[in-house]
Amino acid sequence: MNQDYIKADPWSIIEEGFDKEQVKSSESLFSLGNGAMGQRANFEEQYSGDTFQGSYIAGVYYPDKTRVGWWKNGYPEYFAKVLNAPNWIGINVQIDDVSLDLNTCKEVSGFKRELNMKEGWYRRNFRATLSNDIEVSITVSRFLSLDIDEVGAIKMEIELLNADAKVTFTPYLDSGITNEDSNWDDKFWNTTNVDYKENRAYIEAHTMKTNFSTCTFMEAHVVYNGTTISESKLDRKTDSFVGLGFEQNVSKGEKITLVKFGGYTVSRNHDASELVNVANKVLDKVTTIGFDELLQKQKEAWAKIWEMSDIEIEGDVKAQQGIRFNIFQLNQTYLGRDSRLNIGPKGFTGEKYGGSTYWDTEAYCVPFYMATKNQEVAWSLLEYRYNHLEKAIENAQKLGFTNGAALYPMVTMNGEECHNEWEITFEEIHRNGAISFAIFNYHRFTGDYSYIPKMGLEVLIGIARFWHQRFNFSEDKQQYVMLGVTGPNEYENNVNNNWYTNYLAKWCIEYALEQLEVVESKYPKDYGRVWDKTSLTTSETKAWSKVANNVYFPYSGKHEVFLQQDGFLDKELVKVKYLDRSQRPINQKWSWDRILRSPYIKQADVLQGFYFFEDHFNKNELEKHFDFYEPYTVHESSLSPCVHSIQAATLGRMEQAYTFYLRTSRLDLDDYNKEVEEGLHITSMAGTWMSIVEGFGGMRIIKDQLHFTPQIPEQWNSYAFKINFRNQIITISVSKQGTSFNITGEKELAIQVNNTPLTLIPGKVVEA
Amino acid sequence: MNQDYIKADPWSIIEEGFDKEQVKSSESLFSLGNGAMGQRANFEEQYSGDTFQGSYIAGVYYPDKTRVGWWKNGYPEYFAKVLNAPNWIGINVQIDDVSLDLNTCKEVSGFKRELNMKEGWYRRNFRATLSNDIEVSITVSRFLSLDIDEVGAIKMEIELLNADAKVTFTPYLDSGITNEDSNWDDKFWNTTNVDYKENRAYIEAHTMKTNFSTCTFMEAHVVYNGTTISESKLDRKTDSFVGLGFEQNVSKGEKITLVKFGGYTVSRNHDASELVNVANKVLDKVTTIGFDELLQKQKEAWAKIWEMSDIEIEGDVKAQQGIRFNIFQLNQTYLGRDSRLNIGPKGFTGEKYGGSTYWDTEAYCVPFYMATKNQEVAWSLLEYRYNHLEKAIENAQKLGFTNGAALYPMVTMNGEECHNEWEITFEEIHRNGAISFAIFNYHRFTGDYSYIPKMGLEVLIGIARFWHQRFNFSEDKQQYVMLGVTGPNEYENNVNNNWYTNYLAKWCIEYALEQLEVVESKYPKDYGRVWDKTSLTTSETKAWSKVANNVYFPYSGKHEVFLQQDGFLDKELVKVKYLDRSQRPINQKWSWDRILRSPYIKQADVLQGFYFFEDHFNKNELEKHFDFYEPYTVHESSLSPCVHSIQAATLGRMEQAYTFYLRTSRLDLDDYNKEVEEGLHITSMAGTWMSIVEGFGGMRIIKDQLHFTPQIPEQWNSYAFKINFRNQIITISVSKQGTSFNITGEKELAIQVNNTPLTLIPGKVVEA
Repeated sequence: MNQDYIKADPWSIIEEGFDKEQVKSSESLFSLGNGAMGQRANFEEQYSGDTFQGSYIAGVYYPDKTRVGWWKNGYPEYFAKVLNAPNWIGINVQIDDVSLDLNTCKEVSGFKRELNMKEGWYRRNFRATLSNDIEVSITVSRFLSLDIDEVGAIKMEIELLNADAKVTFTPYLDSGITNEDSNWDDKFWNTTNVDYKENRAYIEAHTMKTNFSTCTFMEAHVVYNGTTISESKLDRKTDSFVGLGFEQNVSKGEKITLVKFGGYTVSRNHDASELVNVANKVLDKVTTIGFDELLQKQKEAWAKIWEMSDIEIEGDVKAQQGIRFNIFQLNQTYLGRDSRLNIGPKGFTGEKYGGSTYWDTEAYCVPFYMATKNQEVAWSLLEYRYNHLEKAIENAQKLGFTNGAALYPMVTMNGEECHNEWEITFEEIHRNGAISFAIFNYHRFTGDYSYIPKMGLEVLIGIARFWHQRFNFSEDKQQYVMLGVTGPNEYENNVNNNWYTNYLAKWCIEYALEQLEVVESKYPKDYGRVWDKTSLTTSETKAWSKVANNVYFPYSGKHEVFLQQDGFLDKELVKVKYLDRSQRPINQKWSWDRILRSPYIKQADVLQGFYFFEDHFNKNELEKHFDFYEPYTVHESSLSPCVHSIQAATLGRMEQAYTFYLRTSRLDLDDYNKEVEEGLHITSMAGTWMSIVEGFGGMRIIKDQLHFTPQIPEQWNSYAFKINFRNQIITISVSKQGTSFNITGEKELAIQVNNTPLTLIPGKVVEA
Repeated sequence: MNQDYIKADPWSIIEEGFDKEQVKSSESLFSLGNGAMGQRANFEEQYSGDTFQGSYIAGVYYPDKTRVGWWKNGYPEYFAKVLNAPNWIGINVQIDDVSLDLNTCKEVSGFKRELNMKEGWYRRNFRATLSNDIEVSITVSRFLSLDIDEVGAIKMEIELLNADAKVTFTPYLDSGITNEDSNWDDKFWNTTNVDYKENRAYIEAHTMKTNFSTCTFMEAHVVYNGTTISESKLDRKTDSFVGLGFEQNVSKGEKITLVKFGGYTVSRNHDASELVNVANKVLDKVTTIGFDELLQKQKEAWAKIWEMSDIEIEGDVKAQQGIRFNIFQLNQTYLGRDSRLNIGPKGFTGEKYGGSTYWDTEAYCVPFYMATKNQEVAWSLLEYRYNHLEKAIENAQKLGFTNGAALYPMVTMNGEECHNEWEITFEEIHRNGAISFAIFNYHRFTGDYSYIPKMGLEVLIGIARFWHQRFNFSEDKQQYVMLGVTGPNEYENNVNNNWYTNYLAKWCIEYALEQLEVVESKYPKDYGRVWDKTSLTTSETKAWSKVANNVYFPYSGKHEVFLQQDGFLDKELVKVKYLDRSQRPINQKWSWDRILRSPYIKQADVLQGFYFFEDHFNKNELEKHFDFYEPYTVHESSLSPCVHSIQAATLGRMEQAYTFYLRTSRLDLDDYNKEVEEGLHITSMAGTWMSIVEGFGGMRIIKDQLHFTPQIPEQWNSYAFKINFRNQIITISVSKQGTSFNITGEKELAIQVNNTPLTLIPGKVVEA
């Protein structure tokens, strides 16, 4: 744990006291998002201290020219990244012509931030003494509307504490912004129009190359003494900035309030020539509704989200805060309304990973969204990959694959590969398998098969083709091997026969073959269409079988475990516990070669396979593998602790499971990895959710039936979670005394608890 | 072969006809160097066409900030590179105020370049019709003096063919130059002084960061009608340019000549405040000597070089030209006068590889210099690494090694690592072994042991320590293994138990242990000094032995060959001959992962070990390994064909040996790799020399005695080479009829020819 300034609270993230050193960290932690746009918790008013500015529009990205030291054939030319977008939140404030700037104020006191997760808003209070000795008390509230997702709202209240003074507000828009991580100091935005009318302003700008047109807009008005003042004068206008001025003499003890609505209209959703018009319509709507009413709607919208996704924990407020923070951030990032969008590892909270899509989505996020939303949301995530199938086929072609083999990119925005480390881009190909697995998982959980004949089968075929070609026959072993891959444990590169990859690849081929049979018999029309479209032949599917039936898996008879890859046992097998603390995290202390030849594992690799395919192995096998690999695992990936937490729980090791849970759930709040100022780890937050639901709750779908094996950490009195299982919401409440179930809807549901049948009856609390 | 415009000639490189497309290629091929400075064959006069400007000063480098896409712990911050230095060759020419520019002339005819390798000069003739229809005939001769190596000389003769005209020469200096390969568009040079006096000029400039001060200087005068004109006027002076003007009305049919001397004085060799003074002294000297006399001395100096290093081939002019080009370039690059210098893979002919030192020096260049120079030159190369030992120890420390373990850098200028690809920088560690091998090789060839007690032993200890720590014990194999390395075949990365590396490492430890014993018994004082300095203990040397005695080597019983690395036999073993031509070179056609998992070998790897340690194996073993590996070798490294040529010759496969020989000797002249415009492959040229001497001639040192097993390619009538063996020069002449030997000096020398003893007697031609 590296920081502990966040106050424990079940429903809010709270910071008290102003510390310039924490500004960037808090800008990440207090970020807001509504699925369509996001905003780091930057101050509205001028701030001359160290800050990391970030406003993001979902799906608006720029293909930044790749930077590498040594070019390798096949590297993508561009790295698409979500951009820092024009600033709509800015409100400069002057008190008797002295600028409010927390970095230069004589004194700041009573500083408090609160991110209210229950209601979806962020508020900041403080008192400040300016250089002219005027003392002010300020409260700023902000939210990004879930209802009208092109808009955010800010209310800034200023009270003069010790003198009368002139208060000047300059709400502004600014497109003269940059990305911190620009590769070549390119200009990303081209501003074409800066305009204002009365108390509204607009900046039209389009991204270079990708040509996404945007209108950043705002409306502002002031309320003083019960009177609304909408009249403003132009304060400043440049070719990338427009600020409106409101000036008011305010008496000591009185309060003046500025309300600002702002946001983006984007050519992804509207005709590019209509963006200002649409912006005006949005502003008409929200100004009619008003700040307070819009906030009320916000609370209701969040109540609905929590109704389906909340996890309550009694007796451990830090654990409670952690899980809610994770669920809240996931919902801020992605709501499943737009199948062109996906979930970047940092969501809308920073620039790292460029807002792009990784295998995290399929492996970690899909289960969360399936269980806490309607199934359409998970469908959207699957559809995203279907829409990118053609590009995945092109991507595989670039690497020498043929005949419709598909390799999904490691990192993508629009289906094209964006990453450029050969050991990842070309070799961390297990990502491809996670996409097939998500299709399987969607069907397993939702019971909805329709995605497969409609879209999924084509994806499964492309992926099976890839694996079939990627294996090669070893004359030496007389089996099919897979050379030169990087598994989920990225602390190994270019290894041969990574067990996880081989196992997943074999499964992908077999699953594709099975689904071909199912679709053939049950959806003959779709079958015909897909068969024709993919030019599949029976000799090809036979060739797939031949490979899948004879895949080599590295195994140690002595240890009775599958080996992470060929040669794993040649390593110097010193367990993590013997590693000096000064050497960790190894990725910050050791050179890359030393990491690679060490036995240390970044995140679940063989165990990731045991997580995906738990039912292929018995508990004794799981235990052997867990006991063999976990001691070498340094968990330096945010995706690591959750899988281990689930497996520790499965093995009945609740103390260990709880430790892993805390690490995953408070990764960002406590800044375990010393990097929260760069943004939050959004995708791993879905893993936190899994730790409770699948780990402690033991939720599984086995043969179309919901199973639970509930356990509870000693530190907790009780916990309760909800899942949407096939359109019925079940609340599972676990205490040390037992487990109770409560199901909504019309139908009874037969489930299993601790392998004992139980029938859930709507409207009745059923104890197990 | 990709180009064939170079005319075959035994002693000269000749281009006829002006082709703008060939300008950059010829700029490389006609490069000049004198060990202290180098110059691409850029035109003296203005040229507005496509060109790659390059003037280089040995040892003057700049640490360019490293560029990588994804930073890995341990990467060096800087990449030191030899810089494009201020231009001293420039001479702008105007005829009746029209600039001479071959890119814009109305007509160019009779264009010819000649690089006379025998005499060490470069000449260019052409006729040009300018836009004002004046026709001129121009001859420009240039050389970089071997005698006074801070200076070069240019003579430009212009004859007016069809009219009287005013001829204006503007000889100039220019420090407003850039590197083509600058990583961050940094400015490398800071000019501090631009000055002139009468017909001399000076630019003082220092490199940023490294602060090498230089004075680029020139003197020019014109000769017309037998009169020398030294008066000039200032033509132009800026803060990085100074040009002097000579103007003369010249009659039709008359010739006017400009002579320019120029070059560099550098703070590496002189006090920085004295550079202009020293420059003046150099100019005083050369102007007194005069162009013609200086050229005469140049011819004599080259005659001396050729006397010791020439290889004559009868009956195959292309082969003759090839080998002389190789020997010539090696001597232009490095003369062994300064142990701070070394041999960059491109010498002074381009920017690639930054003029830095690679393992090429020890593996390829040392044998050439040992045999064609006095042994002091090879000593200088060894001393270079001794001087860098401390930095090699620091380098190893950065990667986690302790106790004085030394890892020499992959790429270096001043002993610090400059390269930043983890699979090379951290893992291509076999380079370390080449340094120990060169020490062994020096002693073997020269018979001089003194380097080892004086310097070499410390190097051997540091390297042995590295290998000892780099092996780890495999519980599984009960042997020492070496994980995560890249062998000489860089088409494999991060492999386990690369046979070459393991073998070399074991040998290095054993060789160090042996030398410790020799030094202990014969140089006890040195032994004590080194023992104390390195804090060596007997328990440490015992630990070395323990490792060296139990090293694991991957081996295939079925094929009876050592495997290049673990898992080699799992590859899809399709021989190169079955690879479609459209797929080659694979490094331009395939993505990196595909190359890595293919069986294709870039350059000798196991066979490099068989080359170094030929006497450890019998001919049957060599044959088995050659026949196993060569069919998978694509020879896409310039260092590959020579080793294969030698081994093919050893196996009596002269046709194959000859094919490899042609490829290595004419690699640049015929531009096999389509990249000669970037510069020449200097270090591999030493391999060409080895192909003849060790391959065809079969020269070996066995038990302190010189052996030969001469063979001759069918295409040749005869060939003859010279070697300096322990201060006696032996000429070995091989024809289809037999071999004759001629030795200089005082002493008889007992050698073996085809394993039969033969005594060479000075002054007598001995037939074998």
